[in-house]
Amino acid sequence: MDEGMFLYWGSGSPPCWRIMIALEEKKLQGYQQKMLSFEKMEHKSAEVMAINPRGQLPSFRHGDTILNESFGACLYLENQFKSQGTQLVPDTGDNQALVFQRMHEVLALQEKLGAVIYYTWKVPEDERHDSAMERNKKTLNEELMLWEGYLEKVDPDSHLAGKNFTMADVMLFPQVAYAVHFGLSSDKYPKLMEYYNRLKERPSIQTSWPPHWKESPPTMDVLKDV
Amino acid sequence: MDEGMFLYWGSGSPPCWRIMIALEEKKLQGYQQKMLSFEKMEHKSAEVMAINPRGQLPSFRHGDTILNESFGACLYLENQFKSQGTQLVPDTGDNQALVFQRMHEVLALQEKLGAVIYYTWKVPEDERHDSAMERNKKTLNEELMLWEGYLEKVDPDSHLAGKNFTMADVMLFPQVAYAVHFGLSSDKYPKLMEYYNRLKERPSIQTSWPPHWKESPPTMDVLKDV
Repeated sequence: MDEGMFLYWGSGSPPCWRIMIALEEKKLQGYQQKMLSFEKMEHKSAEVMAINPRGQLPSFRHGDTILNESFGACLYLENQFKSQGTQLVPDTGDNQALVFQRMHEVLALQEKLGAVIYYTWKVPEDERHDSAMERNKKTLNEELMLWEGYLEKVDPDSHLAGKNFTMADVMLFPQVAYAVHFGLSSDKYPKLMEYYNRLKERPSIQTSWPPHWKESPPTMDVLKDV
Repeated sequence: MDEGMFLYWGSGSPPCWRIMIALEEKKLQGYQQKMLSFEKMEHKSAEVMAINPRGQLPSFRHGDTILNESFGACLYLENQFKSQGTQLVPDTGDNQALVFQRMHEVLALQEKLGAVIYYTWKVPEDERHDSAMERNKKTLNEELMLWEGYLEKVDPDSHLAGKNFTMADVMLFPQVAYAVHFGLSSDKYPKLMEYYNRLKERPSIQTSWPPHWKESPPTMDVLKDV
């Protein structure tokens, strides 16, 4: 069995970024990888479809084992390399519960961000309604305020689920950075912005920063009135 | 610390059912529980909101530890009661990977089922478009065909991720039963129907079967032309 790891990824995709952060944290640098372009539809190419019938990125292979769902891949890497690098899922019950709870809540944030950011991309022109966009923005605002509340209760030098950097941060950070990239308001969401600024220099995150974001700093404003 | 478990749940909700199946499989019967009514908006009641600011079901408490996300709760129960009852996440790499991969793919099925089943409930009347509903149905059909393909490759007496019943089945089964309840076509999706019929008598599933489904057998037909 080939024990090597191979990651197909796209720049700026939070699910791809999660796996890359987990790989860094677990000291699994040196894996093979190939950056593909969503714009050129390379995620639908034969080489991706061969291991991922959904034609999505990330597509990840460890030897003959395939893990294309970012949550699944990250949990797998943590379990298979438990004693290596950062422990991302704590052993003790209540700490572990909070990590599992928060990491899965990130999927609600992801969905609600997507409903605003991709509205014009996902919904054909003759099916668009201002009322739908307003509702999506309101729903996203409520979601973001929940996270503001969670972060408010966290110590200033802590992470999302306590003192240490955990899987909850692996899942949340790319989503927050994504929101910042699309114009998240630092006035309305100071805690999320503080979290972003505190974690963005972490080596695992810096190393895996979306390359095309480095070239074009945040200039998007889709989220400015959310 | 109170070591007791308490589950707020709603009848027919796949996320609630997942936790109930996991509790049965891990031999954690005897937990406290309360069935609430979505129709009466009891999921937004003060007692739920106190442990779940999203006002959603399931809401689950183990002692002082709160786990409202079904995936998080099930992973937590498996980890905390590893050697008790059914082992839901295998130890070996490739088996574990397949379980993690399939269980997280269930979220795509859940989303696409919801987009069809709840279309008229979620989308205000003046924002509805036949073209959107057609697209949602086509997307759901493609998703269901993926699962048909997965199940085609599984041995006739096996489960979703191999010989044993695993967390992948804990996540998938309620979603498939939900689709059947809403009129999934057995002609178009014979493998999913076979999977449904094979697993529905499993004790953990029978015990936790949505009570209001027993009273009203599948008569819905929302999915009949998908």
